[in-house]
Amino acid sequence: MNLHKTPVMPVGFQCASVNCGLKDKGTDLSLFISDVTANAAAVFTQNQFPGAPVILGREIIKKGKLRGIVVNSKVSNVGTGEQGVENARKMGLALAREFSIDPGEVLMSSTGVIAKPLPIEKIEKGIIGIGKHLSSDPLVGAQGIMTTDSYPKALSLSVGNATLTMVAKGSGMIEPNMATMLVYIFTDADLDSKTLDTCLRTAVDTSFNMLSVDTDTSTSDTCVILANGHKGSVDKTAFSKALDFACIEMTQMLARDGEGATKLLTAEVNNAFSRNEARFMAKALINSPLIKTMAFGADPNIGRILMALGKCFDCHVEPPKIEVSINGTLVYKDQMRVDFDEKKVRLLLSGDRVAISVNLNAGHDMAMAYGCDLTQGYIEENASYYSS
Amino acid sequence: MNLHKTPVMPVGFQCASVNCGLKDKGTDLSLFISDVTANAAAVFTQNQFPGAPVILGREIIKKGKLRGIVVNSKVSNVGTGEQGVENARKMGLALAREFSIDPGEVLMSSTGVIAKPLPIEKIEKGIIGIGKHLSSDPLVGAQGIMTTDSYPKALSLSVGNATLTMVAKGSGMIEPNMATMLVYIFTDADLDSKTLDTCLRTAVDTSFNMLSVDTDTSTSDTCVILANGHKGSVDKTAFSKALDFACIEMTQMLARDGEGATKLLTAEVNNAFSRNEARFMAKALINSPLIKTMAFGADPNIGRILMALGKCFDCHVEPPKIEVSINGTLVYKDQMRVDFDEKKVRLLLSGDRVAISVNLNAGHDMAMAYGCDLTQGYIEENASYYSS
Repeated sequence: MNLHKTPVMPVGFQCASVNCGLKDKGTDLSLFISDVTANAAAVFTQNQFPGAPVILGREIIKKGKLRGIVVNSKVSNVGTGEQGVENARKMGLALAREFSIDPGEVLMSSTGVIAKPLPIEKIEKGIIGIGKHLSSDPLVGAQGIMTTDSYPKALSLSVGNATLTMVAKGSGMIEPNMATMLVYIFTDADLDSKTLDTCLRTAVDTSFNMLSVDTDTSTSDTCVILANGHKGSVDKTAFSKALDFACIEMTQMLARDGEGATKLLTAEVNNAFSRNEARFMAKALINSPLIKTMAFGADPNIGRILMALGKCFDCHVEPPKIEVSINGTLVYKDQMRVDFDEKKVRLLLSGDRVAISVNLNAGHDMAMAYGCDLTQGYIEENASYYSS
Repeated sequence: MNLHKTPVMPVGFQCASVNCGLKDKGTDLSLFISDVTANAAAVFTQNQFPGAPVILGREIIKKGKLRGIVVNSKVSNVGTGEQGVENARKMGLALAREFSIDPGEVLMSSTGVIAKPLPIEKIEKGIIGIGKHLSSDPLVGAQGIMTTDSYPKALSLSVGNATLTMVAKGSGMIEPNMATMLVYIFTDADLDSKTLDTCLRTAVDTSFNMLSVDTDTSTSDTCVILANGHKGSVDKTAFSKALDFACIEMTQMLARDGEGATKLLTAEVNNAFSRNEARFMAKALINSPLIKTMAFGADPNIGRILMALGKCFDCHVEPPKIEVSINGTLVYKDQMRVDFDEKKVRLLLSGDRVAISVNLNAGHDMAMAYGCDLTQGYIEENASYYSS
């Protein structure tokens, strides 16, 4: 499967972004809109302090229909009580008014600092006239939803005659559970909302749910898919496969652009006792600060991989059976460090992807997790995020 | 309870440390010895890749008797197979030979890089004549067991006529489970090994087991207590309380001296649904990289505290009931950020202890966890630990 060189919104979808005064520079308010009502499905954060847009979003998505999505960055509208829910509702209403559409078919998202009131007046004003800026370039919409992301993220690919396009943001407070940061997926294929829901949950399970930048699960994670049908029906299996592929590609983009990250860190756990154990251990590997700093320093300190497997107390870990490879080079086997070429492994670790692979020889299940290295940049970005 | 101004080994205990050639400078080999056989108890790491000394230690401690402890730093003797166990045995034998004591009463520990062979010849040579350096200053023994610790750690206090003295190291790869990094506790009180075991497990449960520097559980965690009886019997309850107090003091010393740390970070969770939930949430708070960087930056980004509570998916977290304080100042209540004096909170966060307190109003259990901030220093120390 190949991504398009230049991402584009599918037929009937457009987006826009403006600055409404939340950020000093750059756009801070985006919208995504379909010219007809689209079938839709969504998954949200499992954090028990969900943001107001997530609380409303869970209700809105029940009908399986959406026309518009409105998103602001800088302030997340989380931990803001009743007033926060009211403000989220106002944000959706403003978009519905601007485009004369059903407010029940507008999803809203907010991302940024938690526990600060949403400046709703600025957002309402910003929405007025936003229709003049509509574009079919998804990167325009991706721009306005960025927080600490270093570049806007969008991708497109083809499924039969139809196009599948994804816009996302990530960067920090990222270990999604049942959903991810903000991901918006658009297709002009004709698919009902139940099929979309099944495909979305399957894809998210092996992609965004296996991503972690910093073990911290956001209060605003939202992943939504819209299908407006303009290009007619597509093969469901082909669509599901394309969606899986696109979600994994986007997961890797989000991991690589994690706060302060300089490289992608992946962990593959093979021949695990169960799928759940494989997933748990793969996550333990990419979340270990000692493995993350080892990846950053390109330091072949393979003992840390053993440590991280061993701290999975409830998993089937039998040291005599375990084999470990780094970027394809076997480094540990038969309870001993393999006498590998350290200079070569150091070189492999210096690249833009560190791939740890573990063979547990304990069963037949596998999992793959996606993360990034831990660097001074993460500390710098997060020591004063609130104030900056 | 008060710590002695200067720690001292209890009557009948002595220690020493020398450089046996593992480190370029400083001592790298320590011993602790009692003039008579002491009653003893120990707890070890639950990591499923235990080091060779832990594998042997579990056997040795079964008799509840110890006379000597020998410890090297720089190489941990973990992930070293059969040869590693053989080398650990040789290390104990060398100490037994030097002091003409029963090798079954010698415990050995190793700490440092994982998956490198133990240089046993250097250690055996180092042990010869080490008896000439015996001292009653526990800081001498503490010196030789340091890895990335910035200073040697020891403390003493009185229980009745007896003295209770603790020597420890910590710093990185620290989220002990059922035990901690390396902690050696000595007393001249007369206590049987079963009582020691009960007291030790109780104390460890609320101290070292509630400590985390970086969520990574070491493969070598060992906590052992020796009582040689020279000062006769003591009140068991008083001893247990003194041990609890000493373990919490040492836990705080280890947290403050976590790799790269500039301050102690504590989290108290009150009125939780259960003790396990309180412990889980307190750990989630001190382990959150976003809270740790916020503590470092003295940035009152209180939303991160809500996020960390909310990501405890299986705990009873009801946003409307939750109150949050930072160093005694209420910052969140009634689903809203309290209008606190931000300058004052920023000043509180700038001190050498950041204390988060949460009232869940969900039950009657509480827990306290101990950690530290996350700084550039942690990255620097761990990006090239193996090579340096």
